[in-house]
Amino acid sequence: MVVASPRPETLDALALVEDALRGVLASHVGLLALAGQHIVASGGKRIRPQVALLAYGAAGGEDVSCAVPLAAAVELIHTASLIHDDINDRSDTRRGRSTVNSLWGDNLALLAGDFVFVRLLGLLPRLDGPVIQALADACLDVVEGETRQMLTLGRTDLTEEEHLDIVRQKTAGLFASCAYAGGLLAGAPSEVCDALERYGRALGMTFQLRDDVLDLAGTPEELGKPVARDVEQCKMSLATCYALRIDPEVGRALRAGAHDRVRRMLGSLGALDYAVGVTRRYAAEAQSALEALPPSEDRDRLSALAEFAAIRRR
Amino acid sequence: MVVASPRPETLDALALVEDALRGVLASHVGLLALAGQHIVASGGKRIRPQVALLAYGAAGGEDVSCAVPLAAAVELIHTASLIHDDINDRSDTRRGRSTVNSLWGDNLALLAGDFVFVRLLGLLPRLDGPVIQALADACLDVVEGETRQMLTLGRTDLTEEEHLDIVRQKTAGLFASCAYAGGLLAGAPSEVCDALERYGRALGMTFQLRDDVLDLAGTPEELGKPVARDVEQCKMSLATCYALRIDPEVGRALRAGAHDRVRRMLGSLGALDYAVGVTRRYAAEAQSALEALPPSEDRDRLSALAEFAAIRRR
Repeated sequence: MVVASPRPETLDALALVEDALRGVLASHVGLLALAGQHIVASGGKRIRPQVALLAYGAAGGEDVSCAVPLAAAVELIHTASLIHDDINDRSDTRRGRSTVNSLWGDNLALLAGDFVFVRLLGLLPRLDGPVIQALADACLDVVEGETRQMLTLGRTDLTEEEHLDIVRQKTAGLFASCAYAGGLLAGAPSEVCDALERYGRALGMTFQLRDDVLDLAGTPEELGKPVARDVEQCKMSLATCYALRIDPEVGRALRAGAHDRVRRMLGSLGALDYAVGVTRRYAAEAQSALEALPPSEDRDRLSALAEFAAIRRR
Repeated sequence: MVVASPRPETLDALALVEDALRGVLASHVGLLALAGQHIVASGGKRIRPQVALLAYGAAGGEDVSCAVPLAAAVELIHTASLIHDDINDRSDTRRGRSTVNSLWGDNLALLAGDFVFVRLLGLLPRLDGPVIQALADACLDVVEGETRQMLTLGRTDLTEEEHLDIVRQKTAGLFASCAYAGGLLAGAPSEVCDALERYGRALGMTFQLRDDVLDLAGTPEELGKPVARDVEQCKMSLATCYALRIDPEVGRALRAGAHDRVRRMLGSLGALDYAVGVTRRYAAEAQSALEALPPSEDRDRLSALAEFAAIRRR
C-alpha cells in the first residue's frame, strides 16, 4: 500500500526497493526462499522505505535510486523483527496472512528471521560508515525495546513515561534512522539531518501509538489480524497505562483476564481518547520538525504521512 | 583457552578482543547485559578470532590491533548462532555452563541472540566494504547451513557428499571468512587472501568433523556438554552417513531410537575411524594451503592450529 500518493520518481524507487527485497531474499535453500517470498509478497505498508526515500528527496537528494539500498535495508530490519516477534507472541496471522511460525514452525521461523536479518549485511558494503552506524543504532533500539517490552508484560505499575520510552526505542528508533540516514545520503547539512531524525522519531511514535489504539478499537477485517491481542497478552499500551493510573479496578480486571471488560473500561474512562490525543500531538511534532527543511514536494509528502499515521484505520 | 601458544602480540590482541566483546555486549537493559556477560564469560576457545588475528599476521599485517574489530565480529556471529541453535536444539548445557534458553527461557534467548548479532553492526563502520562483504557471506552461510541441517534431520538417505556440503556452509564458511578477511585487512595480494580462504575453509571442516566425532566418542566431562546429542536428535554426521551406506541396519536402529546401539555400530563398522581419517585429510589440506604464504611465525601457528583441530579432545 502506498500512502500519501508519492511522486512518480518515488514510485519508481519503491518498485526498485521491491526488486531489491526479492533479490536479497532469494536463497538456494528452498524453504528460506519460500519464507522470503511469503514475507515480501505479504506486502505491508512499506512505510519505512517510503520515509527513507522521501527524506532523501526532502533533504535535497537528486537521484532517489541512491536511497534504494537504505530503503531495502530498513524494511529487512523491520521484517526480521516481525518474524521473531510473531514467534515470541505466538501470533498466527499478520497482514491478513499466516505468519512464518504458524506455517513452518518456530524453529524454521527463528532461522527465517535470522536469514532476513543477515541479508541486510549484504546491502551494507554499498553504504557509508555513518549510514551503517545509523542502521546499527536502529537495530539495537529494536532489540532492546522489544526486550524491555517483554520484561514489562503484565506490569500494571508501568507509568506512561516508561511506556512511551519503550515505544521510542522499540519502534521510533528505526523510523528516526530511516529519515536521518536519508538526509545523510543526500549530503544534507547536519541541522537538516537532525530535523529529519526528530521527524522520524515523532512519526514512529505516531505509528506505534496508532497501532496500539487500532488493536483496542479496530476490527479484525480492517486490520488483517486479530484485535485486542495486546490486552490478552498483558502488553501495556498508552491507554492501559492511563486507565491503570486513574482507576485501580482496571488492574484487577487485567489480572483476572477479563479482557472485554478492560476494553470497555478503556472506552468509558476516556483512555482511548487520551491515547488518540497524544498520538495527534506526536504527528504535529513530526510536522513541526519538518519546518527546518526547505519547502519541497517530498517535504509535503512527509507531512502528509504524519497526518495519515495518526488517523489511519489499518 | 588459547591454542597453539600464540605470539605475545597475538595474546595482547586477544585480550583486546575480550575487551571489545565485553564493551559491545554491554546494555542498559539489565537482562541483555547479563545474558551478554554470561556468554562472554563462558569463554569458549575463541578459535575464530585467533584465526582472524593469525591470518592478518601471516599475510604481512604489521599492527595486529587493526584486526581486533574483525576478530570480535566473527566471535559475535558465532556466539549469536550458538544461542539460537541452543533454542532449536533444546540444549541445556554448553561449554560446561547452562545455556541462555535454559536460564532465561526461549523468548529471552531469541532476543539475546538477536542482540549479540545486531551488536556486530556496531563494529562494521570501522571496516571496509570487502571485509563487510566477507562477513555478510559468512553470516548467510551460517544461516543457510543451519537451515539445511535442520531440514535433513533424520534423513537416513543423506549422502556423505551432501553432509560435507552442509558442514562446508554451516561451519567452514565463517572460518574461511575469518582467514580471508584477515588477509584483506593486511592488504595482502589476492593469491594470499585466496590461500587463506582455502586454509580457513579446510580448517573449519576439520573443526566441525572433529566436533562431531567427539560428540560420538568423547566424554561429557571432557566436552562440558552431554555427548551423543547428535544421534539422539537424528542429526547426521559423517560417521552416521558412512555407516548408513554400508549397513542398512544402522538406519533401522536410528529410526527405532536405539542410540547406544547406533554408537556401538559406528565403532564396529569403522565409521568413526573413517570420520577421523577424513578429518585428518582436511587438516592436511589446510596446512598445504598455507604453502602459498611466505614463511612466518604466524603461518606456523596457523599450521599448528590445523593439527590441533584434528586431534583435540574437547
